Amino acid sequence: MSPKITTELLKQLRQVMKNPRYVQEPVQAYIVPSGDAHQSEYIAPCDCRRAFISGFDGSAGTAIVTEQHAAMWTDGRYFLQAAHQMDSNWTLMKMGLKDTPTQEDWLVSVLPEGSKVGVDPFIIPADQWKRMSKALRSAGHDLVPVKENLIDTIWTDCPQRPCKPLIMLDLSYTGVSWRDKIIALRSKMAERKVMWFVVTALDEVAWLFNLRGSDVEYNPVFFAYAVIGMNTIRLFIDGDRMMDPAVREHLQLDSTLEPEFKIQVMPYGSILSELQAVGAGLSPKEKVWLSDKASYALTEAIPKAYRYLTPYTPICIAKAVKNAAETEGMRRAHIKDAVALCELFNWLEKEVPKGTVTEIVAADKAEEFRSQQKDFVELSFATISSTGPNGAIIHYKPVPETNRTLSVNEIYLLDSGAQYKDGTTDVTRTMHFGTPSAYEKECFTYVLKGHIAVSAAIFPNGTKGHLLDSFARSALWDCGLDYLHGTGHGVGSFLNVHEGPCGISYKTFADEPLEAGMIVSDEPGYYEDGSFGIRIENVVLVIPAETKYNFKNRGSLTFEPLTLVPIQTKMIDVNLLTEKECNWVNEYHQRCREVVGAELERQGRHEALRWLLRETEPLARVQ
Amino acid sequence: MSPKITTELLKQLRQVMKNPRYVQEPVQAYIVPSGDAHQSEYIAPCDCRRAFISGFDGSAGTAIVTEQHAAMWTDGRYFLQAAHQMDSNWTLMKMGLKDTPTQEDWLVSVLPEGSKVGVDPFIIPADQWKRMSKALRSAGHDLVPVKENLIDTIWTDCPQRPCKPLIMLDLSYTGVSWRDKIIALRSKMAERKVMWFVVTALDEVAWLFNLRGSDVEYNPVFFAYAVIGMNTIRLFIDGDRMMDPAVREHLQLDSTLEPEFKIQVMPYGSILSELQAVGAGLSPKEKVWLSDKASYALTEAIPKAYRYLTPYTPICIAKAVKNAAETEGMRRAHIKDAVALCELFNWLEKEVPKGTVTEIVAADKAEEFRSQQKDFVELSFATISSTGPNGAIIHYKPVPETNRTLSVNEIYLLDSGAQYKDGTTDVTRTMHFGTPSAYEKECFTYVLKGHIAVSAAIFPNGTKGHLLDSFARSALWDCGLDYLHGTGHGVGSFLNVHEGPCGISYKTFADEPLEAGMIVSDEPGYYEDGSFGIRIENVVLVIPAETKYNFKNRGSLTFEPLTLVPIQTKMIDVNLLTEKECNWVNEYHQRCREVVGAELERQGRHEALRWLLRETEPLARVQ
Repeated sequence: MSPKITTELLKQLRQVMKNPRYVQEPVQAYIVPSGDAHQSEYIAPCDCRRAFISGFDGSAGTAIVTEQHAAMWTDGRYFLQAAHQMDSNWTLMKMGLKDTPTQEDWLVSVLPEGSKVGVDPFIIPADQWKRMSKALRSAGHDLVPVKENLIDTIWTDCPQRPCKPLIMLDLSYTGVSWRDKIIALRSKMAERKVMWFVVTALDEVAWLFNLRGSDVEYNPVFFAYAVIGMNTIRLFIDGDRMMDPAVREHLQLDSTLEPEFKIQVMPYGSILSELQAVGAGLSPKEKVWLSDKASYALTEAIPKAYRYLTPYTPICIAKAVKNAAETEGMRRAHIKDAVALCELFNWLEKEVPKGTVTEIVAADKAEEFRSQQKDFVELSFATISSTGPNGAIIHYKPVPETNRTLSVNEIYLLDSGAQYKDGTTDVTRTMHFGTPSAYEKECFTYVLKGHIAVSAAIFPNGTKGHLLDSFARSALWDCGLDYLHGTGHGVGSFLNVHEGPCGISYKTFADEPLEAGMIVSDEPGYYEDGSFGIRIENVVLVIPAETKYNFKNRGSLTFEPLTLVPIQTKMIDVNLLTEKECNWVNEYHQRCREVVGAELERQGRHEALRWLLRETEPLARVQ
Repeated sequence: MSPKITTELLKQLRQVMKNPRYVQEPVQAYIVPSGDAHQSEYIAPCDCRRAFISGFDGSAGTAIVTEQHAAMWTDGRYFLQAAHQMDSNWTLMKMGLKDTPTQEDWLVSVLPEGSKVGVDPFIIPADQWKRMSKALRSAGHDLVPVKENLIDTIWTDCPQRPCKPLIMLDLSYTGVSWRDKIIALRSKMAERKVMWFVVTALDEVAWLFNLRGSDVEYNPVFFAYAVIGMNTIRLFIDGDRMMDPAVREHLQLDSTLEPEFKIQVMPYGSILSELQAVGAGLSPKEKVWLSDKASYALTEAIPKAYRYLTPYTPICIAKAVKNAAETEGMRRAHIKDAVALCELFNWLEKEVPKGTVTEIVAADKAEEFRSQQKDFVELSFATISSTGPNGAIIHYKPVPETNRTLSVNEIYLLDSGAQYKDGTTDVTRTMHFGTPSAYEKECFTYVLKGHIAVSAAIFPNGTKGHLLDSFARSALWDCGLDYLHGTGHGVGSFLNVHEGPCGISYKTFADEPLEAGMIVSDEPGYYEDGSFGIRIENVVLVIPAETKYNFKNRGSLTFEPLTLVPIQTKMIDVNLLTEKECNWVNEYHQRCREVVGAELERQGRHEALRWLLRETEPLARVQ
């Protein structure tokens, strides 16, 4: 990796920062955040502005350019990568280290008195604007919105915003029609006494209308906004995709509907002016509901007194609780995914000893097997295929420069998943194709104990996921070990592989309580820098639990694994397991045999079936 | 309990709410919070203004009186008590119930347009003021500070503010001189670039100057403020207690000290004007550090741009980490406390079958035995002595109307503690003096498993206490049971029995990480309304843990029980314990025998010693 030469680009940017064509007054600093206008985790190439200006293309980072300096804030995952990708014009600000200043503190330390700091108001979330603006103001500076994105003005070969065809999902996939979703949403709006709801997150628009797209890699979403009133529905979307008769039929655009279900289709770019018109026409007590992470531009369109901001929108919360059709779809998707992985692991077992399988080859093979399955659409994230020391890099993605060959001497970690029309998968297995050391087995077994502790946990209705995080760590903690990431995230239903409002992490507190029907990942790990990485991840469904008693009639919950891929028994030190844990493994493997075995049989994949049967032999605990 | 008749009082209050002698403009509502000017949990009689105006004397509650209404907000612990103590002038607002309005919402719903809402700015914490003020302003009303407390104007027989003699603690108790504490504080101030620190919490003043008092029951504190500058020390305190030569010597008031350690003693009531003078004299960048829970009055004395507010003050954090002298003192205090409880339980075992021991008698007897111990000062909180159904009332305190007689048929729960000059104790034991049912034993054993899970937990340095809370609940959750309170609180060293900034609770997230030397309680429970209550509480010290590995060189922590009182083995269903748990109990009891046994022997308390030996026989697990 050689760094991107940015001298000329920075010169151009500094010019437009003073060019009255773009800025009312010159700005002494310009902030380039990571995100797009929808606060997406994965963004389209046309939104990779921070990567364009700096060269650093990790998933998290904020660039700030002043007349003298160019600085990049990113977190521990990306210190090395950012240092490699950026030239000497840039200063790397290592977030999380004690001596690293915050963006605000740094700005205050370098800016001349009374400076203006510019940012694209469509890209910065309202809550971040507020914090940054307050800090700058108290030091005598001003945060100002710059309407035209200054990076776009110098990005001459900026790719077009994607505008790909839509996928319609019928009731057999979604369980609920878009019309019924609108009715439910309006009833939530009525409960909170709001008249309007602004849908800004791409996955929320997709979920609401039972549509999917492919404008962003890995996330089956499309660029759009929606504004839902008590009697109106406005969908802001570009391109001729609304000309597709099937889409028109799906949205009933040409039917004679009751007016309150008639969708008005408007250009994507008209959201701001339309919302400003809504804002201007509000009568007292007519509130507008927005996510507190919506962009500053859209939030400002509504006068402050009329805003109703919440961290999680009603769509985010409704979307998280999967209905029977979605749950069944997720089950089907995970069975198909397991078939593909049984094929892969069987293939790896044969091929790895030959010394010809690299991380990239293995990742490609995984995708090949997945793509053979019905309703496969694409991967759900970039496959983490890592062997030996690469396994310790938590967000590793093999590239030619780092690509290692799998061998019988190193641990192999595969974290991968796919989008099927009926569901989204995300599974991690850690394997050894030779003989693992006692220490590797010991660490693997602690991780497994943590995985089981979460998966088998019983907890009261209303419990927030973060309260379960320590269960995943307890066995590691007992030996002085730990892992520096959360334990689980919400998973969408043929939607984003990471979604709110629930999760299992020591880092969050504002998560919503777990409810039956929610789907999260359970993925503790252990990583030894320079040596190996271990992670065991299942996607699990929150289900009601039967308990002996029922305190205050609250009811209890537990998890059912949707992922049904064998956990390599060769890596387990059985003597470290309790009887209960040993039974859990055996029952899990029995279920893999029954469910995935039947599907392998049905698909005529006999060799993979034999592999599955061999890998799911019951463990025997030596007393 | 008959309710307090408040008709006349409310009439008087409503008059002063319009009396220009007290209010600049009439206020349409007046808020009477629970607290004192120091945000104390326990308050002096002269500060019980909410109890005076309403009759309701629980520890938590806020009264709001308007021209038409009088309403009281309190939580689930006090619904019954408040309903009994208040007359029909009052509306009870049950906090935590779905349909109960917040104070702000209620005010907005009942007030005429453009109302003024008054509150004593010395009693309302700044953060509460901010929230309340914002909500009222957005509805067109104003929150206004009323300098003279309106309750005090009508409280003709208001008791005097206590002003009792001070207790001086020498180095053998505190380990660090007040002078060295000031030096350490100033170095924290320099780190944060603040020039002044305002000490508003009573326990922080007491800790800083190595002084104790008895102005408030149970908490060995005295009414005072302090303002620490980089070169000045101001102590705001009333009464002739500063005339005591021993106090003058302790504070070196008459010595020729370096000027930066010279304490200026000022009247308690002059804090506001002195702080305003400090505020007026600040030059740019001279910040003043305050707790964000300090009163609105004191916070406002410092212009906004100069305030540095934090949830926990540097004193709060320093005070939580006990030094060797304090830890040793706490150990001694807990041994003496255990001696008193061995005497008590031995006595109860003989007396309960006679049917003459009531909850109050038992509580008094506990105090009697404690008061026989060296350096005993007072109780550390009102003893919870509860049998049968009273045990299910979590904050029960026996009074003649509820006083039950202990019997061989009911579970007895005793939660009690004391202030000794060398330390503060807080211990709960749950006993049966006859034969417990299998169900009672089952529940007790789940609680014990939770207690052990926390006490024996090993966790990395930097872990916050709330991450351990679920360990205490896991065994209960497995059977569908739970308890509706936190698991632990910080404990002071001959100071408040509840102190920040650490604790173990699902409810907090802003707690500071646990550190070696911190002291918290470990007190899971189980309560069955109308039947019984179970709680097992030890005070535990955070200590370094030895582990097999040491991830990232972070080091690990665990707990050492300071409380050494037998856990009744009769209540344990041994078959529900794992081998590890069984060993924990046996080792704990072995330690009780050795340490407390030696002290009982030394004090010649042979009968109690025999009781201890009998109660600490090892458990035998049936395989």
